[in-house]
Amino acid sequence: MSDSKTVVVGTMAFDSLETPFGKAESIVGGAATYIGLSASYFTKGVQMVSVIGDDFPTDYLEDLKNRDMRLDGVELRKGEKSFFWAGRYHNDMNTRDTLDTQLNVLADFSPVVPMTDRDADFVMLGNLTPAVQMQVIEQMEKRPKLIVLDTMNFWMEVALDELKEVLTKVDVVTINDEEARLLSGEYSLVKAARKILEMGPAVLIIKKGEHGALLFNKEQVFFAPALPLEDVFDPTGAGDTFAGGFIGHLAATQDISFENMKRAIIYGSAMASFCVEKFGTERLLNLTKKEIDARVQQFIDLTQIEISF
Amino acid sequence: MSDSKTVVVGTMAFDSLETPFGKAESIVGGAATYIGLSASYFTKGVQMVSVIGDDFPTDYLEDLKNRDMRLDGVELRKGEKSFFWAGRYHNDMNTRDTLDTQLNVLADFSPVVPMTDRDADFVMLGNLTPAVQMQVIEQMEKRPKLIVLDTMNFWMEVALDELKEVLTKVDVVTINDEEARLLSGEYSLVKAARKILEMGPAVLIIKKGEHGALLFNKEQVFFAPALPLEDVFDPTGAGDTFAGGFIGHLAATQDISFENMKRAIIYGSAMASFCVEKFGTERLLNLTKKEIDARVQQFIDLTQIEISF
Repeated sequence: MSDSKTVVVGTMAFDSLETPFGKAESIVGGAATYIGLSASYFTKGVQMVSVIGDDFPTDYLEDLKNRDMRLDGVELRKGEKSFFWAGRYHNDMNTRDTLDTQLNVLADFSPVVPMTDRDADFVMLGNLTPAVQMQVIEQMEKRPKLIVLDTMNFWMEVALDELKEVLTKVDVVTINDEEARLLSGEYSLVKAARKILEMGPAVLIIKKGEHGALLFNKEQVFFAPALPLEDVFDPTGAGDTFAGGFIGHLAATQDISFENMKRAIIYGSAMASFCVEKFGTERLLNLTKKEIDARVQQFIDLTQIEISF
Repeated sequence: MSDSKTVVVGTMAFDSLETPFGKAESIVGGAATYIGLSASYFTKGVQMVSVIGDDFPTDYLEDLKNRDMRLDGVELRKGEKSFFWAGRYHNDMNTRDTLDTQLNVLADFSPVVPMTDRDADFVMLGNLTPAVQMQVIEQMEKRPKLIVLDTMNFWMEVALDELKEVLTKVDVVTINDEEARLLSGEYSLVKAARKILEMGPAVLIIKKGEHGALLFNKEQVFFAPALPLEDVFDPTGAGDTFAGGFIGHLAATQDISFENMKRAIIYGSAMASFCVEKFGTERLLNLTKKEIDARVQQFIDLTQIEISF
């Protein structure tokens, strides 16, 4: 475990979820929660930058602290409520309906990176308004070694100019295949990647859910499979968990080469495969290094092959 | 190149195709054509079992013979027309509408495996009525080393009992993900695979198109990625070309172990990636071993990784 400083920005929230396997009411979720928890298995002292109401369970905050995560950057608003999202997944688990969204404390969230972490080497910007993501970048006192940005189709539709501005400031972008097509206007993911890499980032990760993930830079492409699973119990947070494992591995190794990013997306995929096994963050609260290594080995075995010509 | 006998059964036909890249009118297609051509890059003397009308171009038959394919099993019906299919692909290239189907000679096709090949070690049953596939199995004088069956959703809907009977007689089944779900009644492909393997075959290949292919036996799973392509020009025949590369590699090496099937689905995937680069069979008519090996290497590079724990 390395101690290179890592800052994670995003929501800490409540989710109410319905999947074909059951329901969960107002359980802890949020992009930063998933990202931070996942990264905490690789690197110590992850600094969380978020906002919560006083309804957020204090014992959950203790759980995060016990995982060596730092919460100085989490603003607690007395008398206010945390961000809330409710959704229902369809049988295919790839599509979902939003049933309710209550912004609450998120409505005027203005993130503040603690002074102690404005020289962090690794910054993970979870899905948020592009303008808010930009505020974080502007607060950094030196250019981080690596800024990773997650975003979604919604911002491409309502805040494309701001999003494009942020894209010029980051190193790695993670989006799903439909978002890559929307952002680039190209159906072919190879063409989409080329266009998006021209917008600023040096690296693009296209998440394809149960179909794995693609890692592109301008010259190379790598593919991480998804593990075929018996059941996907709850896909909520899988993308964030993936991103957390990705940046966590890079921060721990302090190696941002393309070769190491290949390993990082395998680690991210392995963490995501745990995430979907239970509702919410449950499975991410008590994993062991041994379990994670064994899962990573399964990913390797799934595609490794020798052919002699 | 080995000379172990390989029999390929299926349609030889005309297709009219529309893709977002253009149109092709009445070009040569058909499952057996794609399978046989693809297999011919790996093993000599592939015996084709099919039926054509006298409208089928004789110079195309010469092309097949020049690739060391044998056509004794192709019945030529004078005064009749070959099977014809017309379809239009949607922009995503994963879905298509059938515009026209003319069975013609296929209406009463009764395949006859030439006496010289009834002891073949490798039999590939292309997509056909299950009852017709069964006729071929019954004509074999000794149990082939390996029988591979391709089928489709249509037969699951109209001839499920006959299909289930054939499934008890074959070693490997190739279907796509939706068909695996339909046949098993399970959404999870892991559960679907388990159920289908209980129906008879020792090995199941689930083709996921642009998302790669999964290889299952009762204990193991392997995943072959699809190569991210600039453009998929015409997906027609990709699944058959995949199957042809698969059985061709197995026939050439005479090794039907799971380890060698892993290599075989990489070869199949590589052949399919060529197939979609041009309309119809065009790209499959003049490949070189060097091109195929280079493409296989690209597939390997796409997923190979080293992680030390």
